[in-house]
Order: sequence, then C-alpha cells, then structure tokens
Amino acid sequence: MFEIVKRDGLARIGKFETRSGVLETPALLPVVNPKICTVTPKELYEEFGFKALITNSYIIKNTPDLKAKAQEVGLHKMLDFPGVIMTDSGTFQSHMYGEVEVTNEEMVEFQKSIGTDIGTVLDIFTEPYWTKEQTAESIEVTLERTQKACDMKGDMMINGVVQGSVYPDLREDCARKMAVMDVDVHPIGGVVPLMEQYRYLELVDVVMSSKKGLNPNRPVHLFGAGHPMVLALATLMGCDLFDSASYAKFARDDRMMFIDGTYRLQDMQSLDCNCPACRGLTLESLRKMGSKERMKVIARHNLYQITDELALVKRYVKEGRLWELAEMRCRAHPAMLDALRRLEEHQEFMERYDPISRDGAMFYTGSETRCRPVFRRYMSRIWDRYVPEMSKAALFYDEGSKPYSRALAADFDRVRRSGYTPVVVSPFGPVPAELDELYPIAQSLFPVIEDIETMLEAESSTVEFLEHKFSEVVKSQDVSDDGDQEYDADLIRAKAVSRYQFGIEATDALFKGKIELVVSRKTGKIRNVISDGEHVLSMRAGDGLYTLRKEGADRIVSAVPSPFMRVKVNDDAVPFVSEGRNAFCQFVTECDEGLKPMDEVIVTDKDDKVIATGRIMLVADEIRSFKKGIAVKVRSGSGDEA
Amino acid sequence: MFEIVKRDGLARIGKFETRSGVLETPALLPVVNPKICTVTPKELYEEFGFKALITNSYIIKNTPDLKAKAQEVGLHKMLDFPGVIMTDSGTFQSHMYGEVEVTNEEMVEFQKSIGTDIGTVLDIFTEPYWTKEQTAESIEVTLERTQKACDMKGDMMINGVVQGSVYPDLREDCARKMAVMDVDVHPIGGVVPLMEQYRYLELVDVVMSSKKGLNPNRPVHLFGAGHPMVLALATLMGCDLFDSASYAKFARDDRMMFIDGTYRLQDMQSLDCNCPACRGLTLESLRKMGSKERMKVIARHNLYQITDELALVKRYVKEGRLWELAEMRCRAHPAMLDALRRLEEHQEFMERYDPISRDGAMFYTGSETRCRPVFRRYMSRIWDRYVPEMSKAALFYDEGSKPYSRALAADFDRVRRSGYTPVVVSPFGPVPAELDELYPIAQSLFPVIEDIETMLEAESSTVEFLEHKFSEVVKSQDVSDDGDQEYDADLIRAKAVSRYQFGIEATDALFKGKIELVVSRKTGKIRNVISDGEHVLSMRAGDGLYTLRKEGADRIVSAVPSPFMRVKVNDDAVPFVSEGRNAFCQFVTECDEGLKPMDEVIVTDKDDKVIATGRIMLVADEIRSFKKGIAVKVRSGSGDEA
Repeated sequence: MFEIVKRDGLARIGKFETRSGVLETPALLPVVNPKICTVTPKELYEEFGFKALITNSYIIKNTPDLKAKAQEVGLHKMLDFPGVIMTDSGTFQSHMYGEVEVTNEEMVEFQKSIGTDIGTVLDIFTEPYWTKEQTAESIEVTLERTQKACDMKGDMMINGVVQGSVYPDLREDCARKMAVMDVDVHPIGGVVPLMEQYRYLELVDVVMSSKKGLNPNRPVHLFGAGHPMVLALATLMGCDLFDSASYAKFARDDRMMFIDGTYRLQDMQSLDCNCPACRGLTLESLRKMGSKERMKVIARHNLYQITDELALVKRYVKEGRLWELAEMRCRAHPAMLDALRRLEEHQEFMERYDPISRDGAMFYTGSETRCRPVFRRYMSRIWDRYVPEMSKAALFYDEGSKPYSRALAADFDRVRRSGYTPVVVSPFGPVPAELDELYPIAQSLFPVIEDIETMLEAESSTVEFLEHKFSEVVKSQDVSDDGDQEYDADLIRAKAVSRYQFGIEATDALFKGKIELVVSRKTGKIRNVISDGEHVLSMRAGDGLYTLRKEGADRIVSAVPSPFMRVKVNDDAVPFVSEGRNAFCQFVTECDEGLKPMDEVIVTDKDDKVIATGRIMLVADEIRSFKKGIAVKVRSGSGDEA
Repeated sequence: MFEIVKRDGLARIGKFETRSGVLETPALLPVVNPKICTVTPKELYEEFGFKALITNSYIIKNTPDLKAKAQEVGLHKMLDFPGVIMTDSGTFQSHMYGEVEVTNEEMVEFQKSIGTDIGTVLDIFTEPYWTKEQTAESIEVTLERTQKACDMKGDMMINGVVQGSVYPDLREDCARKMAVMDVDVHPIGGVVPLMEQYRYLELVDVVMSSKKGLNPNRPVHLFGAGHPMVLALATLMGCDLFDSASYAKFARDDRMMFIDGTYRLQDMQSLDCNCPACRGLTLESLRKMGSKERMKVIARHNLYQITDELALVKRYVKEGRLWELAEMRCRAHPAMLDALRRLEEHQEFMERYDPISRDGAMFYTGSETRCRPVFRRYMSRIWDRYVPEMSKAALFYDEGSKPYSRALAADFDRVRRSGYTPVVVSPFGPVPAELDELYPIAQSLFPVIEDIETMLEAESSTVEFLEHKFSEVVKSQDVSDDGDQEYDADLIRAKAVSRYQFGIEATDALFKGKIELVVSRKTGKIRNVISDGEHVLSMRAGDGLYTLRKEGADRIVSAVPSPFMRVKVNDDAVPFVSEGRNAFCQFVTECDEGLKPMDEVIVTDKDDKVIATGRIMLVADEIRSFKKGIAVKVRSGSGDEA
C-alpha cells in the first residue's frame, strides 16, 4: 500500500507499507552482496538509517550454504536486517554474463521460500542496442512471466519491471500492461547501460514514457540508479526508489563518489572531506591504509554522499523547490544538462501533476528553467481564460528582476485612464497588469541580465497573444497623459484572477449583481469578494489566488454542470466531510479531470449538493487508483485558509 | 611576500609569508570578537584548521581591561592563537554606527603595540548610495591615511583598503594608487551592503575594476565576504582572502549556513546534516537545546560549511575547473546568476590571465559558459592567425556532443579532394578541420541539445569569419565526390596549429625547407615536426598543442625580433637556467607582454641568445611585480614534456 504525503514536480514523499514496516520514499536501497558485506546490513540500518536493502536471490540460490541458511532461518535473520528486503532475480546477471539457467517460476518460488519482502520477476533485460522487434518480443515474455509471478506471489510483494530498451512507445505500452497487473512495485529496468554511457537524454525519455503508463499508486524504482548526481533529477521525474551497488563496487577500486562526480583516489589532489567516514583522514593517510580498511572507509564515504544528497532532495521536495535543486545538479555534466533540457519535451505531461501554487519564491537558474511546466500553464491559461478589460494594450518593458514592479503602478494608471490595458513583457510571456500579483508571476525571481533565449520567447509569445486578444498595441511611453476613462483597478483584478483560476463561466457566476471588495488597509490588496451580499471568495496574500467559500461553491454548482471543480464522495463520507473532515481517496466516486494539485475544489454528495470546499491534494487519476491518503484537504465552511 | 603556486581563471593558490607563518591562499579568516568567543581561537586553529583570524583592534582599544592585557602580553598570547592575526581598525564600526572618535595614527600605533601581524588603516567606508563626488573626496582621505600608515607601520603588515562605492572608475583609480604604496594586502572594502542586498552584479564590477588596478603580487581580501555561496565566484575573480563574522552572528539568531543559502532553524523541515557539528543531532534535538549550547553547535556547523566549500574551491582550482564550480554555485540565486553573466563584460581582462591550456575536459554548464575567456581567445586567434589551406570552405553541422567528431573524417577527405576546407560550426564558432584536435576544441563537452543563444552566436561568428577568410562557402553535402586535388592533411594541421599557437611569422621560420612529420603509429597523431633535418616541435597528445624545441627556439629568435616569445634573464641566472633549472621572477629583466600562462617560451640572455625553452607560469606584469616564484618552468633541452 502506497500513499503520497507531499509532492513537487512529479516527485513524491510517500509512505510505502510493507510486511517489514513502512518505508518513506524517496528511498535508496543499498545492494548487499550476500557473499561479501563491505558494510554489514546492521550498520546500514543503524548507522546510515537505510530502512531497506536489496540482495540477490540468484546468487543465494546458487551458493549451497547460503541457500540452505536462507531457507532455514529466512533472509532477515541471515542478513541480520530488521528492515525491508528486496531481492533481485538474476536478470542483471543475464545482462552481465548472458543467459541464466533458472526459470521464472523457480526464482519466484525461491524468493518466497527465503522470506523476501519484495521479490522480482525474472524479466528480460532489454539492451539499449536491441532492435525494436527484438525488444517487443522480449517484453511479451517479461509480461507473461510477470503475470505468472503475480499468480504465485502469495503474501510476497512483486516487482513488475518495465522494459523496452530506448523505445518510448514500447516503454509506455509495457508500463500500461504492468499497471493493470497485480504487481506492487514498478521498477524501470534496463537503464544501467544508459547511465554508464552518460546517455541521460535517453534516460529521461525512458523514465517519462514509463511514468505515463504506470499506475500512480505504486512506487517507481529506477533500477541501478544510485549516484548522488542523478537523485534530484530522477526524483523530479517521479522515481521513488533507487539502489546502489556502486558504493561498494567503486570502493573496491578506490573510487570516491561526490555530488559532482566520481573521483579516483590516485587522481585526487586532496581529500578535505568531513563526512563521518573521512573525518580526520588526509589523502595520504587514506592511500597508506591497508586495502581492506581503505575499501571500508570509501564504501562508507560513498554511502554518506548518498544519504546526504537524498536528505537534501527530500528537503527540497518538502519546500517545493526540487526543480531548483535538479537544475543546479544537472550542471555537473553536459550530459546531465541534456537531460534537463530534454524535460521540455515532457512539459505537458508534467503540467498535469504540477501544483497550482507553492510556498516561497521561484528561482530562475538559467534558460533551462523555461522547461518547467509552470511556464506552459501560465501561457495556456491566459490564452483560454484572459478577457481584456480594455480593447487596446500598452506594452511595458520592465528592467527589474521581477516581471512586474510596484514602481510601474503610476504608469499603469496613466495608460488605463487613456483606455489601454497595461501589459508587461516578462520571462513568463505577457503579463496584463491585473495578473501581476498571482502565482507564479509575483513569486518568481529572475536575473536582471536576460538570456537571448528567454528574451526571444517572451517577445514572440507576447506579440502572438496581443494580436489575438487586443485590437491595438502601443508602447506605454506613447500613451499620452490626458485620458479620462473611468475604471476600477481592483474590480478588474478581482475578476481577472478569478477567470485565471476558475475559468470564465464560473467567474460570471461568482461576480453576479452588486460586487463589493474588501481591501486590506495595510497592503491595499484585495481580501474578500462580496457578490450580492454573499462572501464568495477570499484572496490569499501569499500567492494572490482565491480561497473558495461555501457561498461561492453554491454559485458554481448551480451555474456550471458537474463534474466541473467537483470531487464527489459517497454517502459514507458525507457526514464526516460536511463536518469539515478531510475527504479520503477511497470515498471519492467522481472527480473533475482538469483539477491540479492544490486547486480549490467543491466536495459534493451523489446529488451534486455542496457539502464542503477545500484544496485537492491529488489529481483525478491518482485519486482513482489510490486506496489511501487525503484527496481533499477540507476547509471548515466558517474560517478561511490563510 | 606573496607567491603564486597554482592558478585558474583569476584564482590563485598562493603562499603568503607573514611574521606568524606562511598562509596558503585562498584562505578565510574567521572574525573573533575579543569579548565573546563563540568558538575559541584555539579551536579555530586546531579543530577547523584556520591558520589566520581577524579581530577588531578598535573594540580592544575601547575596552580598558582588554587593551591593558593586549598591550601587556600581546594579541597572540591574549587570544591564545599561534597563527596569523589581522586586525580591523574601526572602519566597519563607523559604517555601522557613524563616526568613530579615534585618529588613523592612533589606530595604527595601537595595532603595532599589540603585535598585530596585519593591521588596517582607518579608511573611510564608501557606502553604495554615496554620490561620486562624496566618494572621490573620501578616497583622497583614505589614500592619505594609507600613506601615513605605510610610513608608520614598521614590521607590521598593512591593509591598504580599496574603496570607491559602486563606481568602477573610482575603484580602479584607487586601486592603482594603492598598488604603488608600500601596503602588504589589498582588501576591497565597502562591499558588505552590496552582498547584504544581493547586489552581486555590482559586486562583480567592483571587484573586477579593483583587480585591474591592483598590484598582482599582493593578496586581495574581499572584506566581509564569508558565505560559502560566494567563495567560488569570488575566488574565480582573483580574491585570495575572505573573512566571516556571520558564522557566529547567524548562530546567535539560529540561522544555519548552507552552500545554497542561509536557513532559519524555525523554517527548516529537517536537519539531516552530517557535518562534525550536527552529526547525530535531529532538528528537534537541536531546537530543544539550551540557547548557548545551540549557538555553539550552529556556529561550528557554519564554520564547517565554510571550510568544506573552501576546500572544494581549492580542489577545483588545482584541477583547473573552477569555472565549472562557480557556474554551478551561481545557480543558487538569480542575483548570483547575474554576477556570473556580468563576467562577460570582463572577458577581455580575464583572458590576459587565462592559461593557454588545462588538463581534462571543459564542461559546458549553460549559455553562461560562453562568458569564459577561452571562447574569446579562440575567436580572436583564428581571426588573426588562421590561414586557409584552400580558398573555399565547406560547412559541417555536427550533431555530436563535441564540436568535431572522428566520424566526419571521411567527409573531410571528400571535401578536401574537391578543394574545400572543411569547417565545423561549433559552440566555439567556426572550427577548420585542421584545428579540431587542439585545446579547447577537442577537450570540451557540450550538451547535444544546444541553446538558442549558443546556436545564434556560433552561426553569426561563423558567417563573419568565413566571409573574411574564404572566397566561397558551400554546405558540405553539396560537395561532389569526384575531386582529385592533392593535399597533405597532416602538414596542413601541423602548420595551422603552429600558427594558432605561435603566430604566422614564427611558423614560417619553423616550417622552413623540407618538412618531415613523425606520426604516431598507434593514434595517427602528429608527434614531431622535423624541418630541414632539425627537430623543431613536438606535439602534446593531451592538448594538441606544441612543445617548442631548442632548435625551434633558435629559428624563432633569428626570425622574429625580441621580445616576441622571449623571457630575458640576467647574467646571474644564465648558468643555472641553461642547465635546465627553472627561471625565477626576480631574475627576469624582460618579458613578452603577449604571453599567457602555460605558453611555450624562449629563455634568453641579455644578448638574446637562447639558453632554454619552457612554459611560462605567470604573465609579464606578474613577473615584473613578484619577488618570488617560478616565472618559467624550464625544460631541459634534451627531453620533451609529455
């Protein structure tokens, strides 16, 4: 059973329930060689805090004494590891050394017999150099074997490995078929050669095409990925589990992992590492050590590099800033930069899961930042939902490090009085003045020195948009100061934000009849929208977006047909939710497909009666597939969310 | 006495000789408050390895008991610190709290009386908001006081602080005047407000304009810079010394420094820090601690963040990859990215000190990488020194992650046979085939997915170059395969590389008469150039550039007038250097101004007689000003450098 606790990009902080305890994801599973434990499983658990590991059932099966022991006392006892144990099946051995002489059934049976928590199908490793035909055929075999494993698994969990070499369509198709099988974890397999050859660009396509097909309620394991350098990117793409054999493999030939790459001891100029393993050691002292002792130190160093980076990745997910971290990390190698740039191809898919808002500022780290879905979403929303207040537009080019700036307010007023809509050319594209306080516009930081790429994109998207929306466009300085047109800037903003957030139809319903705006005396910002005496909306100071009130919800429900903005729950949930308790996935019967995480939603009963309002935590297909977790954070009708 | 050991960009690993020992730079000096030592000087020295610190003589002078003690036992004994002690003069206090009631003379005298190693003039802190006039006037005062301090200093070293607010011309002018005074260290002052306000773009102009005027043989101290986030960039710009009061100041209000910024304890989601100070602590346990104990932990954590980053910066300088690190670090905040982009304005100045070659690949981290001087140098060299083998050019667009690719060799042959020079359009600009193995072309890694900025730049620079150099330009695929032109690719390359490295005139001298090329059987690469039976050049496999042989040097000396490629030494050095010993700065009487670090040079005696060849470590103005250190790494006439 898997549950999402926090999210950012496609990344998820999750809770994965297993027979041997709950595993928090993202998690990395160190690979333990049952024959030589460079670092003992107990140390991994206690000193490093690894609550799960992988070992290889194929090797155990082929080593008589290990086999006997494992079957007698069980894997956990044999390895003296209280956490979650996953076993590999020999697939990787077949990749390394050609065919293996066991059957899938034997391997599944054996893994069960030694008490593995999560076993693996004997899938077929699809090599990057394989033809499409060859790949497609082998996937068929993998799927059959996976079905068989599901039938046999009993109370052992099963890894249903997505294969497909470098063919996105095959990967996605294989993923879709895995998604409907009774597997428990979705590893993405056959990617080690890509990483070894720095083919990160293709890795992105492989992971993203797999993600498109997979069932969101199962953790995704990027098989063989364990270098600290890739953790931020892989987590951003929605991988939940990782594993590392390298920490020990590298240690054997004196290679030390660092966040910016792997260095050979003999090439290093100095050590200067304060990790608990290296603390107090110099390059010289480490080189002088006995090889066995040195191997242990380096293995432990490598593990600390991994745990530190994984902890950092989690911190950034919790802060909603994982994009920033991934963009920094991907500068470590041009091939990683390619991966980052490749994400632009997958912007549309990522946009579906991208939260509508986040805490804190968005940092622009380079032209690659434009690959983020938030850019795409903003443009598509103003195309579909923006209605000009005045038919003519006056262009502003702001020199500030933000697309908008308070300093412009006076100029805005001047052009408005002359009947023009002020539009600022920003890295996001065109920003009509009335949208300049909502997320992400007001919460983003850009460098003052723009790159050509961003400038050109801003220019062209602005021109296109203005031609589409306005009858005439002039430069703001060309607008004379003698206009006398009446206008209400606050009302214009109040409506524009509502359209941006809820669409035109819902906004017409919310802004019916006489409109009063409650404006904060301190900040001059809109606080509440009262329509015909009903308090329908409250604006959040943090992101300039609205909180929907019960009265507003009623308006929308009567004006816009279901399932728009609705999350419908069954009768069991109605009494609780209407009291203000959260709505959980398993009680949801229907959900608007267009909703994004953190969107305002209306919770209704089967008769489309409003029973609560709140913010949605998951998107429709997630809610459908998850058996646990909060679907809607419900707001008690009375007070507003800050 | 200051000496450069290793360099990269404007960064230098240096040795700074003081009364209290030799300090390796770059170095950071923790600020110790003589009244409250959050971390004791002894701990700073022994546990953290800080060999120098700063304390404030103004505070000591105004605290009777401290003053008495300091004058009685001396500063080193009072603080129990065996390393180098620098004292500040009260200038910063005047910035914080307005005027201070001491004179410059009093402060200098007092600093001497307490045994300071490096004292500071009571200079005037030029605020960023000051007018140019106000700033210029105060600089005059600072200069007078500095002259006075130099007259008084005795055996105490003196900080001659460069001021000038945000006016580059005033900064440079002030620096030039400091450069000719008898000061020992060149701090750049008045920059703390810029850093506090994230005005890194202006910080770059301030530092670079100061560097232009300063005397290269003195360490440059960026006063008040101590956040790990800025160390890579500041070191790249040629700052050698830093200081940090923040490690303790931040600790007092529960702020923890990390490489990506500073975080308030109350805002943090988790700790997960394995530094020796935090190891074993959780966020909760840290919060629960007594404030005094917590302050100590956080201060030590902050110090470890600083030492770790400084060690990393040094490692990257030694590896010749500091640009890569700075480019990664500057992604932490858009204002830092602005600083990085601003460096393009200073490309020309930086190019003068940029090594002609480096070990290992150059990594492209984003469009900002084009700010590196190596791009500018390459373009200007091919403009000035490239001579087309054939008057027509055929264009190649390579899809690889490198600007050239072996796969093209066959095509190169085809177009050459038809009388065209193959030219590859690369991120560096146009790359004629014969230059595709020299540094930086062959040693650089670029992403496959190009950014528009780089593409446009490559295009336009290529078009310009081709029009200038060739009579006709076609696409390579338009060249038919029926050419029968004779050509010698190796000879073409051998000459082209020589022109790129030594210029046209020298190349004519080196390639006189009958030319034989020794080509490696294994790699097919040129090894030696024999001209009229004389072995004049050897090509290095590593960077595709030449090593100059004695015979080649003689040719150049007789063909090209002095000081071209010469480093002239006085008679005292002749016997040693001609035996193959290195040439030291103090013996050099003349030096070609055009030489770059690591360039091949000819060491001559006063009569322009060749006594050795080698590689130059410093540029002309450095050699002139340094009293210590190797000017030329001499190669014994017999063997070649690998």
